Amino acid sequence: MTGTLFGLGIGPGDPELITLKALRLLRQADVVVYPAPLEGATRARDTVAAHLTTDQEEIPVRLSMRADEATKQRAYAAAAERIRDALDAGRDVAVLCEGDPFLYGSFTYIFIRLADGYPVEVVPGISSITAAPAVALAPPVTREDVFTVLPATLPVDALEAGLKQADSAAILKLGRHLTKMTKLLERLGLADHAIYVENATTPAQKVAQLSSVDEAAPYFSMILVRCTPERWR
Amino acid sequence: MTGTLFGLGIGPGDPELITLKALRLLRQADVVVYPAPLEGATRARDTVAAHLTTDQEEIPVRLSMRADEATKQRAYAAAAERIRDALDAGRDVAVLCEGDPFLYGSFTYIFIRLADGYPVEVVPGISSITAAPAVALAPPVTREDVFTVLPATLPVDALEAGLKQADSAAILKLGRHLTKMTKLLERLGLADHAIYVENATTPAQKVAQLSSVDEAAPYFSMILVRCTPERWR
Repeated sequence: MTGTLFGLGIGPGDPELITLKALRLLRQADVVVYPAPLEGATRARDTVAAHLTTDQEEIPVRLSMRADEATKQRAYAAAAERIRDALDAGRDVAVLCEGDPFLYGSFTYIFIRLADGYPVEVVPGISSITAAPAVALAPPVTREDVFTVLPATLPVDALEAGLKQADSAAILKLGRHLTKMTKLLERLGLADHAIYVENATTPAQKVAQLSSVDEAAPYFSMILVRCTPERWR
Repeated sequence: MTGTLFGLGIGPGDPELITLKALRLLRQADVVVYPAPLEGATRARDTVAAHLTTDQEEIPVRLSMRADEATKQRAYAAAAERIRDALDAGRDVAVLCEGDPFLYGSFTYIFIRLADGYPVEVVPGISSITAAPAVALAPPVTREDVFTVLPATLPVDALEAGLKQADSAAILKLGRHLTKMTKLLERLGLADHAIYVENATTPAQKVAQLSSVDEAAPYFSMILVRCTPERWR
């Protein structure tokens, strides 16, 4: 009997935004895997620290935020091999996923390496794309609205095309692309309808009109923008 | 002192997919409001029934699934007035929201009527747009992918334009639009990359290749489609 691989969405940061199901499966797991920086606090582990038990094996997947794609894939491949060994030994493995496992989550890179050989269960988590509108009290879409999620790392023309097709958009992975995005939204006449949200649901949370933000944006930040502003509520 | 209005995301159907935070606030609420059909089971209430207490006032917002927009808005306006009375009396009111309160949720219609006058807190919930990929084991987006949510009720040309801008899409509100969507996806060469998900995370859950689905789709169903199929994992 091999173990089961669980991808557990643990939500956007507030430890209370984990589901009962993720919590139950986390507590039952023999091995707990989570992303970690090369040094310093491990945000995913910290979010669920109150629920971990001392008899669980922990496997941090250490990666610099600035690692290139090849380095990242080597780290996920190495983590997948350690997880494979645990599953082969009949142990259940929970991979902690900030937000949701499959929505821009690195769990996908572990999943594609192991899904063919082992039972897998994925527990959805609260994504920042719903957490940010909730803390900003800004409902993005109703009825027949089109909602689009755009990584700010895309070229400007792709971002512009995406914004023009949407009624409302969430722009992720801002970081050093904040100025590029602000300029684009100004050119499209949408900057006044854009809300900046940083570290939603955590003590470091910040919500502001985009026009009032001028410093660099951290990784966990996004812009919510109503692209058809006459219908922004 | 007026009460606080809480919009509580209760998730896609599995009672375990509620967050600790929504559960705590639900238990503390003096009044619990939920959508309900004109007759028969109330899905939202049933999902959290184990957690309700006998001293909570319940306000079902009764609406036919086939009600026209004016009828719906009259029902939300009437519900908002009952909620206003409770808030004015200093009672905390929890509105149960299937999925997430602000992502195509009817909570928005209550929110816009009361947000200016009362304290409001919105607790995000697991949306079907992450629940469906999780149960289908189909990761929709990684890295720089564009993810778009399209209501199937839109005209075909708007749906086609949206699909062409996205790497991956979730098509909601299928119902009687299933045949229209299937034909469009076939014409765009995407039908073989489309997954049909019905009642995700509930006992009535169904996951199938779109090409194998021929009967009518219920309200709680969607299509997940990889629009750039060479990158579907």
